[in-house]
Amino acid sequence: MVESTERFPALRVTLQDESEITASVASEFPVTIMLNNRELVTLLCSPSHLEYLAAGFLASEGFITARDDIRNISVDEKLGLVRVDARETGDPDDGQIFRRVITSGCGRGAYFYSAADTTGTRVDLPASISAEEVFTLAQRFQHNSELYPATHGVHSAALFEKQDVLVFSDDIGRHNAIDKVFGRCLLEGIPTEGRGVITTGRVTSEILHKVVKRGIPILISLSAPTNLGVRIADALGITLIASVRGRKMHVYTGDWRLESASGVPRSGL
Amino acid sequence: MVESTERFPALRVTLQDESEITASVASEFPVTIMLNNRELVTLLCSPSHLEYLAAGFLASEGFITARDDIRNISVDEKLGLVRVDARETGDPDDGQIFRRVITSGCGRGAYFYSAADTTGTRVDLPASISAEEVFTLAQRFQHNSELYPATHGVHSAALFEKQDVLVFSDDIGRHNAIDKVFGRCLLEGIPTEGRGVITTGRVTSEILHKVVKRGIPILISLSAPTNLGVRIADALGITLIASVRGRKMHVYTGDWRLESASGVPRSGL
Repeated sequence: MVESTERFPALRVTLQDESEITASVASEFPVTIMLNNRELVTLLCSPSHLEYLAAGFLASEGFITARDDIRNISVDEKLGLVRVDARETGDPDDGQIFRRVITSGCGRGAYFYSAADTTGTRVDLPASISAEEVFTLAQRFQHNSELYPATHGVHSAALFEKQDVLVFSDDIGRHNAIDKVFGRCLLEGIPTEGRGVITTGRVTSEILHKVVKRGIPILISLSAPTNLGVRIADALGITLIASVRGRKMHVYTGDWRLESASGVPRSGL
Repeated sequence: MVESTERFPALRVTLQDESEITASVASEFPVTIMLNNRELVTLLCSPSHLEYLAAGFLASEGFITARDDIRNISVDEKLGLVRVDARETGDPDDGQIFRRVITSGCGRGAYFYSAADTTGTRVDLPASISAEEVFTLAQRFQHNSELYPATHGVHSAALFEKQDVLVFSDDIGRHNAIDKVFGRCLLEGIPTEGRGVITTGRVTSEILHKVVKRGIPILISLSAPTNLGVRIADALGITLIASVRGRKMHVYTGDWRLESASGVPRSGL
């Protein structure tokens, strides 16, 4: 059985000290739903109760309406596959699902299935940041949003260098916020390579997919990562700092880019 | 121009008193990206800087790689349309976007474009809850998750009746958590009609899409709604209680289902 959490070594850093901890992070698991032998959708989810997920998804999307519509559900946890044999009732919500709609929360087409998919795209750029700079940056970053204090309903993302916010955006979708930052950089010729990205959102595989394309060596999140987020950051050589709250943070990967308070250089991982 | 926030009247309720307030909520806006005259994707987003969003999305998904690839971008805010004329470079990430992948945050196929799409599916079931029950429920609900305290990286959802959690689920995706609840209800024959749903996630149009299908008259969120969330709940006759924090909450729609502390019945909206 795939576990719902995975434990990683991390560096817990405050202004005063550092300690090595073991952090539990939520597992992110791609599951493909096959309805009557056709591939319907792949969801990134927590790897538990996949039969509930499949039944609920099919009902929510209008493929089925009642218990009796389902003839059989079989879950192959190892392959991440749920096969549903069902009597399909009615229109699956006007075929909207086939319009490749991607929504606010929110879904994006491409992601890594595993760290192994990332071969050849490492971000080996030098860059460094100190704990003090991270905390100052996080504070400035949070003060940039006009929408959040008003609505408590948006995510923010920014390109940064050291403690300075360079390009800021917010959006109801955490993916959109990052795309708006990179889109502006692209259109206005603002370089991203070697610079950092900070986000309020959780760090899932899709976020890594975006930042590696822009040559971002340092990714900071005020929220938590998933296990794929950590594994992929590690495989890509990206420094992942997450769960920045107040004057506390966890460094999950690439801690050689974090300047030591004592000034003593760290060895590479 | 479409505004990034919209103001709604709401009832601010504590154990001691109620007051009518005006709440700002984030706008949720469907935007379709057309690449070289073909419809590529529809994103639910905040309605600002749509040219950045389109450019960033195309770059993140591998359709373009540099500024020069874009010949023209035109934004029609009224129609929610961004037309991009571009030289397409390389494979759009192995065509993954066309595999209808839906991800952790996260996207789901179907949603309402506006309250007008919801005709005919009102939830006119009687149901009621008191402020005290909401606060007790919210507390019990939050104590149900084993994953959240460990990881800070999951959403939770539950079917409830009054202050009792009946079916609970958590998942890295807020949509998945709700689908797992409904899927279990479907497979185990647990009735949902006339019962409530509580979620840690924001209330966007897609969440309404799910709960109305199961005949849920009361939707409670510990987070904020979007403007479409409020508008659609209103059009569907669903009682939307959101931003439940400590002993404070906002009732956005259908406040006739909230039992008055004084015992005096409320009039319908």
